[in-house]
Amino acid sequence: MDIKALIRDIPDFPQPGIIFRDITTLLRDPQGLKYTLDLLSEQCAPLRPDYIVGMESRGFIFATPLAYQLNAGFVPVRKPGKLPAAAYSQEYALEYGTDRLELHKDAIPAGSRVLITDDVIATGGTAAATAKLIQQTGGELVGFAFLSELTFLKGRQALPDVPVISLIEY
Amino acid sequence: MDIKALIRDIPDFPQPGIIFRDITTLLRDPQGLKYTLDLLSEQCAPLRPDYIVGMESRGFIFATPLAYQLNAGFVPVRKPGKLPAAAYSQEYALEYGTDRLELHKDAIPAGSRVLITDDVIATGGTAAATAKLIQQTGGELVGFAFLSELTFLKGRQALPDVPVISLIEY
Repeated sequence: MDIKALIRDIPDFPQPGIIFRDITTLLRDPQGLKYTLDLLSEQCAPLRPDYIVGMESRGFIFATPLAYQLNAGFVPVRKPGKLPAAAYSQEYALEYGTDRLELHKDAIPAGSRVLITDDVIATGGTAAATAKLIQQTGGELVGFAFLSELTFLKGRQALPDVPVISLIEY
Repeated sequence: MDIKALIRDIPDFPQPGIIFRDITTLLRDPQGLKYTLDLLSEQCAPLRPDYIVGMESRGFIFATPLAYQLNAGFVPVRKPGKLPAAAYSQEYALEYGTDRLELHKDAIPAGSRVLITDDVIATGGTAAATAKLIQQTGGELVGFAFLSELTFLKGRQALPDVPVISLIEY
């Protein structure tokens, strides 16, 4: 199945000159959704993760079914102030300014195998920040999985040296 | 399996006097996650939904695996300005002030069967607003599904007269 054929391009979103790759048209297609999730879990299975970490909010879309399929736990990384228990916090750079991501301190047991997933890797800023959060827990980062990769932004170069899976590239 | 036993209570979050039901401890437990998602899909299957609509961001956690399991499409309802194509917008009341939810205008074909899902139903404000968004598409709302229901807030009374599924009650 051609995943890209189910993703539509929205020109000039969120700002002029940017082509936004809108995956909602893929997600709303039952066969497209199933094919994508099955392919993702098939490619991630050899990494044998105990936990799938997904970043708020589009990362949740892929992380939970992936956890379900791989018999792993799902752990959310959230925006500041959303997690109710004690959390690690990690700053990362935006185009203008900075933002933070948080992870419950007791979410990941030391030594467990952790896979980070999101819908897209662009500059790699949020994925790299999430990797730093995992490092604080003592969990072992075993890889990253993304639906799509914007290769011209070279986001992989910002990530630790573990397998990086992406199903499609732009 | 006792789902509630895997959910932890966080007192005084997000404000004094509130007991927050923290589902992250359920989600990170592989057996708990699998049991919960299987039970949810089993109870929703008779409604034969074509589309599962989930509200940003915790609704995504349940909506996507539910769509996967029921061979349906997943459609996100998002906070303002996040959806890239033309969208319907619906205001709803917060404790202080208002907020808005948005849905792509072309996400739901007229006449298709739509199930709305979220992690929790409290006052029913966001679920009722999402139901109004579905109505604008011409889709047929066939039910609601929640992991948990805060029965003392009587959220069901805010919803249209369709089946409302909740796995646990507080």
